[in-house]
Amino acid sequence: MMDLYPTGVFCAALTPVTANLAPDVPALVQHCRWLLAQGCDGIALLGTTGEASSFSVDERKAILEGVVEQGIPADQLLPGTGCAALSDTVTLTKHAIRLGVAGVVVLPPFYYKEVTVDGLTASYEAVIERVGDARLKVVLYHIPPVAQVPIPVPLIDRLRDRYPDTVVGIKDSGGDFAHMVELVRRFPGLAVLAGADPLMLPLLREGGSGCITATSNLAARELATIYAGWRDPARAAEVEAAQARISEVRALVSHWPQIAALKGATALRTGRPGWALPRPPLMALTETERAELQFALEASAVL
Amino acid sequence: MMDLYPTGVFCAALTPVTANLAPDVPALVQHCRWLLAQGCDGIALLGTTGEASSFSVDERKAILEGVVEQGIPADQLLPGTGCAALSDTVTLTKHAIRLGVAGVVVLPPFYYKEVTVDGLTASYEAVIERVGDARLKVVLYHIPPVAQVPIPVPLIDRLRDRYPDTVVGIKDSGGDFAHMVELVRRFPGLAVLAGADPLMLPLLREGGSGCITATSNLAARELATIYAGWRDPARAAEVEAAQARISEVRALVSHWPQIAALKGATALRTGRPGWALPRPPLMALTETERAELQFALEASAVL
Repeated sequence: MMDLYPTGVFCAALTPVTANLAPDVPALVQHCRWLLAQGCDGIALLGTTGEASSFSVDERKAILEGVVEQGIPADQLLPGTGCAALSDTVTLTKHAIRLGVAGVVVLPPFYYKEVTVDGLTASYEAVIERVGDARLKVVLYHIPPVAQVPIPVPLIDRLRDRYPDTVVGIKDSGGDFAHMVELVRRFPGLAVLAGADPLMLPLLREGGSGCITATSNLAARELATIYAGWRDPARAAEVEAAQARISEVRALVSHWPQIAALKGATALRTGRPGWALPRPPLMALTETERAELQFALEASAVL
Repeated sequence: MMDLYPTGVFCAALTPVTANLAPDVPALVQHCRWLLAQGCDGIALLGTTGEASSFSVDERKAILEGVVEQGIPADQLLPGTGCAALSDTVTLTKHAIRLGVAGVVVLPPFYYKEVTVDGLTASYEAVIERVGDARLKVVLYHIPPVAQVPIPVPLIDRLRDRYPDTVVGIKDSGGDFAHMVELVRRFPGLAVLAGADPLMLPLLREGGSGCITATSNLAARELATIYAGWRDPARAAEVEAAQARISEVRALVSHWPQIAALKGATALRTGRPGWALPRPPLMALTETERAELQFALEASAVL
């Protein structure tokens, strides 16, 4: 079996903000510690769930620096560095490598729609060439429901062909399990990570590498249980129970807008009400919604 | 009649780049001069046609500073300052005001899709409050085909209600003429600008204020003719001819991806081949396409 990277459970960590909507680095560091203690293999901070695109390049640099300075191991971090502007993606990727991160998750440039495979190829090539660092490990980020710009298969073909040691993985948040399996089959040597928690287990069984997911902000332990035990027949019952739990928590949270619900749940878990705030254009749950969420989480013993 | 702002013909200017894909400010300044000489009332630089979202905040600041320093009157500039990140929109808007621009065109935050009116309202409010400058004049930017996040009517309602002297206009690039007319009817005192060249004349007749358009990079003179003459029965024939011309040029260019075609045409007009380059993910026309474009432009006597 080839040595894939990244493998395991990565949490697409939420980014807490202060009352002034500035990044709250101490609260994020605490959250990262908790996630690692829950069994996450790493933290994919500053992705869609982390509201990365709602922060400036300087804020994103400060967040990553703060987390590393406060002792979260850089080699367990997998930050998002993809922006609409080529120059921003290059700046953030260079910065992340300099801090010693193991890899970066790179969105396609997402402002223009219906761009060509040639155009996307040119974008990723320009990033890789301008960063020009042998340590660079890129995880492509396929999230068509949000970015509206997909990572088409011919793009992966070209990038794998040209940069087999650099373009090492893909996070597939398209929600289409058949597509994830197709990626595993077509691209041996490419780490395919599920972008939805309940799909990690079936994808592992098809040769996938793990997950980068949002619900793991709340239920990382169950994902870690699945990842540790899925090959072991003796742990089948434990794995199935964890999988059922993951599906339950995800279904519960999906009654509200995802990031607001996960932030609301984290506010309740930590006792820090500030956690509930996203940055506009996302909105916090209303008081009523937060009360409903608390009832639901308590009824399911998530809290 | 109320005093609306902005009024007239604004060109959504292209942004030339160097071989290294850096902004080519001298070439942009030359283009701005030409556009004003052709009769544009102002220049809406760094919009969608200007590939604004493909440049970093620092690059966008440098572009605007360069243009102002090289003598393009700041009060004829209407730069785009809307970004995915609230903090970037605030930074760019403050910077533009400091340089003396008359107004700014502000995209909604465009990364997250299906955001609520509350979330969009909170975004624009946060920008206006954080900029905190009585000189601020905001033109909302409705371009759902690209941003995928629209400016819904209830959002305009709330912003006009709260900031009637600040939120002064809307650029409607939705392509739906009935929607533009609805905006004129619903919001007296709001300048409604057509985002498509052939729609300026019909919109002026319905009470619109002018246009901010892409084809004006090539055919600004005709738009200026229409704007100057549309109320004067003695100039009806001249206006109709200009309108026919605008429609012809736009139809011609629409055989290729718009920005690539306009840049290709500008390369031919100026004799500077570098003009043909966009920044990835957009791509320049191929040699064949450029040759076809040249034939078409010459056949129509645009060149």
